[in-house]
Amino acid sequence: MALQSTPNHTQTVSGWAAHDSSGKIVPYIFKRRENGVNDVTIKVMYCGICHTDLHHVKNDWGITMYPVVPGHEITGVITEVGTNVKNFKIGNRVGVGCLAASCLECEFCKNLQENYCDQIQFTYNGIFWDGSITYGGYSNILVADHRYVVNVPDNLPMDGAAPLLCAGITVFSPMKDCRLLESPGKKVGIVGLGGLGHVAVKMAKAFGHHVTVISTSPSKEIEAKQRLGADCFIVSTNDEQMQSGKRALDVILDTVSAHHSLGPILELLRVNGTLAVVGAPGRPMELPSFPLIFGKRAVKGSMTGSMKETQEMLDVCGKHNITCDVEVIKPDQINQALDRLAKNDVRYRFVIDIAGNFKL
Amino acid sequence: MALQSTPNHTQTVSGWAAHDSSGKIVPYIFKRRENGVNDVTIKVMYCGICHTDLHHVKNDWGITMYPVVPGHEITGVITEVGTNVKNFKIGNRVGVGCLAASCLECEFCKNLQENYCDQIQFTYNGIFWDGSITYGGYSNILVADHRYVVNVPDNLPMDGAAPLLCAGITVFSPMKDCRLLESPGKKVGIVGLGGLGHVAVKMAKAFGHHVTVISTSPSKEIEAKQRLGADCFIVSTNDEQMQSGKRALDVILDTVSAHHSLGPILELLRVNGTLAVVGAPGRPMELPSFPLIFGKRAVKGSMTGSMKETQEMLDVCGKHNITCDVEVIKPDQINQALDRLAKNDVRYRFVIDIAGNFKL
Repeated sequence: MALQSTPNHTQTVSGWAAHDSSGKIVPYIFKRRENGVNDVTIKVMYCGICHTDLHHVKNDWGITMYPVVPGHEITGVITEVGTNVKNFKIGNRVGVGCLAASCLECEFCKNLQENYCDQIQFTYNGIFWDGSITYGGYSNILVADHRYVVNVPDNLPMDGAAPLLCAGITVFSPMKDCRLLESPGKKVGIVGLGGLGHVAVKMAKAFGHHVTVISTSPSKEIEAKQRLGADCFIVSTNDEQMQSGKRALDVILDTVSAHHSLGPILELLRVNGTLAVVGAPGRPMELPSFPLIFGKRAVKGSMTGSMKETQEMLDVCGKHNITCDVEVIKPDQINQALDRLAKNDVRYRFVIDIAGNFKL
Repeated sequence: MALQSTPNHTQTVSGWAAHDSSGKIVPYIFKRRENGVNDVTIKVMYCGICHTDLHHVKNDWGITMYPVVPGHEITGVITEVGTNVKNFKIGNRVGVGCLAASCLECEFCKNLQENYCDQIQFTYNGIFWDGSITYGGYSNILVADHRYVVNVPDNLPMDGAAPLLCAGITVFSPMKDCRLLESPGKKVGIVGLGGLGHVAVKMAKAFGHHVTVISTSPSKEIEAKQRLGADCFIVSTNDEQMQSGKRALDVILDTVSAHHSLGPILELLRVNGTLAVVGAPGRPMELPSFPLIFGKRAVKGSMTGSMKETQEMLDVCGKHNITCDVEVIKPDQINQALDRLAKNDVRYRFVIDIAGNFKL
């Protein structure tokens, strides 16, 4: 516990942590810093369960510092504000996503792209400015620097809004980058209909595009079309469907974290099209050169979004009434939810009712 | 020989062909079409030996139609012009590259990007409009539709210019696409110092950029710097050098055809940088997601260039006196040259003296 023993970490909070790579989550009492001059304290209402949480609790990437308190899809209400904080007040409905800190001085921090600062620290399993390990949103109280906090529009429910803080911004940022916000009528493909994919479909439809879902699961077709509004559905294991979809799409967003080849997906893109990759498979993806070079196609990475983009995304979601489809669970169901998530058995995101507010 | 027996293929020409996947090249007498109204006939002077030739003679990609007459880096002199041809005259010094035909009607053909037409046919091992198999530049005479022929500037020697028709345009097109022609002072990386890489270094320097060569061969450093003008040299197997080069380059051009991971190369790019891939490894490249998404980087393919770009490239090379460094060989040395090429033992391109003009 050496790293936690920074002098001002005297606030006792309760949460849920994994203590080893079994990944089992148990209740955990720990200390957070007192609310500093630049901080806000947030009573956490909901926290989404992201695939990244699963990777961290099981130490899949070999970088987990145990005990780990996961959670970076956080909505809650402000209970305290530091003296330097002018843009938030007690009672504000706010959200916290992946970012806890960045250097504040590099070109990216200075140009509202702090998500690409190379000193970036995450909301959990990061090292904060004071040297302490960061603990995430599986916790009743969060203390966050106000520069990494955003407002949740009044019309959005706090449970369905929580996953927007990671899943939502992760798909919004590359869409914005590909100019999908200002140029309707494009042919957009979404690979994978999970936590990220389903909200990407909602956004792409709200922005006025023709949306094709590409999925391994034929069973998702009806839901993709009727519930989420997709225009087309391609089963990626069906060669005939893949063949007939060649060179049709302007932009494809690949949200799949499982290992896969990018070749067949690239073939669906028009010449000069862009495949935006936001998933993070553990093994390297397979990139065959022929569909890349013959189509002058681009594979582009994107990692979450800046705080400015995150606020813009929430405002856009507020305007279009976009939230995530969630299954709300109680904290004692986290392990069960993680097990189901590992099997992709969720439509489309688990959200933990941290404050016990959710009534069926 | 069925496909060759189109009625107007009555011109007997001599050349060099491989007849099976042993890849052995032997003299070959065959028929070409008579010069049509849109054609020019070219007395071939020089033909470069491209890696693609090696793949084709050995049927590495499983698509070779034997006998194959390779060669798509062709310079020569026009000896006949069709009645519809207004832009070429007998005696013109011209070049022919990878393209023999395209559909002429699709959006790409209509917008001067016929290299991305999906009906594209290549200078050898393609199927021409009349149904005949195309035969390349390892041959004393070539008949080409004038729309796929370009002028070679007067100041460029025909031997050193020949490889520009493939190697040159292959690296020029993505450089133009990345705006390197109009914005000097960028940090440009060139991966691989072979036939493509060495001319890419010359072009990038001529366009006013800071050039870093990334190579597996420490022995090439002196030559890269002193002869080609590179500013920096990174040995890609040297972890320390790769580490200290992180996030430094704006654009990287990867010319390597051997199997390799794109991860370490991506790390050398700045945030939002572009890795242009022009090599065509037989196996899929490895693309790890972390350096892609954490740096918002793009991997973009590019395949040769349009005819308009090819003429522009030759004009630019004429202006800057850029040619390829070549080893000129006689036709009876082709097999030896292919063997050496397979071992990367060439600086930097073999060129066949088809017409017997070259004197030591």
